[in-house]
Amino acid sequence: MSEPAVTRHSPPDGAPLDSQLAQALDEQRLSDWTEMFTDDALYVILSRENYDRGLPVGLIYCENKRMIHDRAFALMETSMFAPRYLRHIIANQVVVSVESNGTIKSRANYVVLQVLFDRPDATLHQVGVYYDVFRRVGGELKLAERRCVYDNLLVPNALCIPV
Amino acid sequence: MSEPAVTRHSPPDGAPLDSQLAQALDEQRLSDWTEMFTDDALYVILSRENYDRGLPVGLIYCENKRMIHDRAFALMETSMFAPRYLRHIIANQVVVSVESNGTIKSRANYVVLQVLFDRPDATLHQVGVYYDVFRRVGGELKLAERRCVYDNLLVPNALCIPV
Amino acid sequence: MSEPAVTRHSPPDGAPLDSQLAQALDEQRLSDWTEMFTDDALYVILSRENYDRGLPVGLIYCENKRMIHDRAFALMETSMFAPRYLRHIIANQVVVSVESNGTIKSRANYVVLQVLFDRPDATLHQVGVYYDVFRRVGGELKLAERRCVYDNLLVPNALCIPV
Repeated sequence: MSEPAVTRHSPPDGAPLDSQLAQALDEQRLSDWTEMFTDDALYVILSRENYDRGLPVGLIYCENKRMIHDRAFALMETSMFAPRYLRHIIANQVVVSVESNGTIKSRANYVVLQVLFDRPDATLHQVGVYYDVFRRVGGELKLAERRCVYDNLLVPNALCIPV
Repeated sequence: MSEPAVTRHSPPDGAPLDSQLAQALDEQRLSDWTEMFTDDALYVILSRENYDRGLPVGLIYCENKRMIHDRAFALMETSMFAPRYLRHIIANQVVVSVESNGTIKSRANYVVLQVLFDRPDATLHQVGVYYDVFRRVGGELKLAERRCVYDNLLVPNALCIPV
Repeated sequence: MSEPAVTRHSPPDGAPLDSQLAQALDEQRLSDWTEMFTDDALYVILSRENYDRGLPVGLIYCENKRMIHDRAFALMETSMFAPRYLRHIIANQVVVSVESNGTIKSRANYVVLQVLFDRPDATLHQVGVYYDVFRRVGGELKLAERRCVYDNLLVPNALCIPV
């Protein structure tokens, strides 16, 4: 007879920030993307296999905003990075918890679609789930933790793009 | 001059439950998934071709929660079920009607992405639309009907996974 | 210290109309789709390459509802249009601005999935972003502008379907 829990019925408060993070990556505005993280943010990309086994080893492991910034730009400066368009689709947001200080834990599924400039078709680059922690800094919602756990990583594009 | 109808502007109340149903399937928590249905729930998977012609014949037809449970677990126990990851993307939720007793009729598009453990790429396993009826049982929103109408069913994976 | 902007925390008011537009296309109800536009609506489909360069040249360019209607139906009457199912997935809605008269500017990512009747698999037909302007006409929200900017256009299906 109890009221449905907050996880069911509140709008997913982090979802609009999700969209803005995705938009920044889609438009390759990597500085804007970085600025949506807290200074001490954790950003990790790891396989579902490792995540399920509790292994923290991943493709990307950044422990603060400076590392996130460096990692994002390092790739763009390599000559191996073929020009491409990326497009994020984020869905199924679930707010897991909201703490009294405004910290939000949530999850969402994602798909990253990719179009190489010299190919006509879009491909499924990466499919997975975000485990996120959002926190307010000076009244503004920022991303304090993002674990991107991928089901697949398409081998020909294994260069590690932020997602 | 009338106000926009409820179908347009209310948040899609069933959407968070949609996400939780999808999450349970993504994580192969089939008991949790089953428990989100009402005892007398209808669960059907059928082709768009049959749906458009008014033919009820489908790949899965379950008339109550017990049948849904049996059907979900039967597959997992077959030796033909190759290990795989599934990932649901649900979008375009539309609330069709909200009745005075809290029953919600809604629809949403879905994509099920699949990664076989021995293949590096994700594929589009199934694409379609959910026609849903949500009902409150003891204050909690449950799924009373779900018709999954698929545009395609990828032949190599024709074993019928719940979606 | 300022409050988060409206772009972050208000529900994306145009999103339900997005879903209804998508549903109308998915079900090939082209007249219903057309009626969701204002009389003077702009509807354009153009490549991301041209959009980024500020070139307005596109696959479709319609300056009012009558042109949109004609364009939508013209395709269906050609003999080259192979029977197919389309399915829209819209995500990452961001409200860019809300004006005092109720006009809403927003963006959203989209994927159009396609199933040809004689093929078992779904394919990624088109991937891109909507740049939209919604306006109230007689109390009802309508689409006053939609620019569909596609990352890719799958060559074998280059016939220009409304998205």
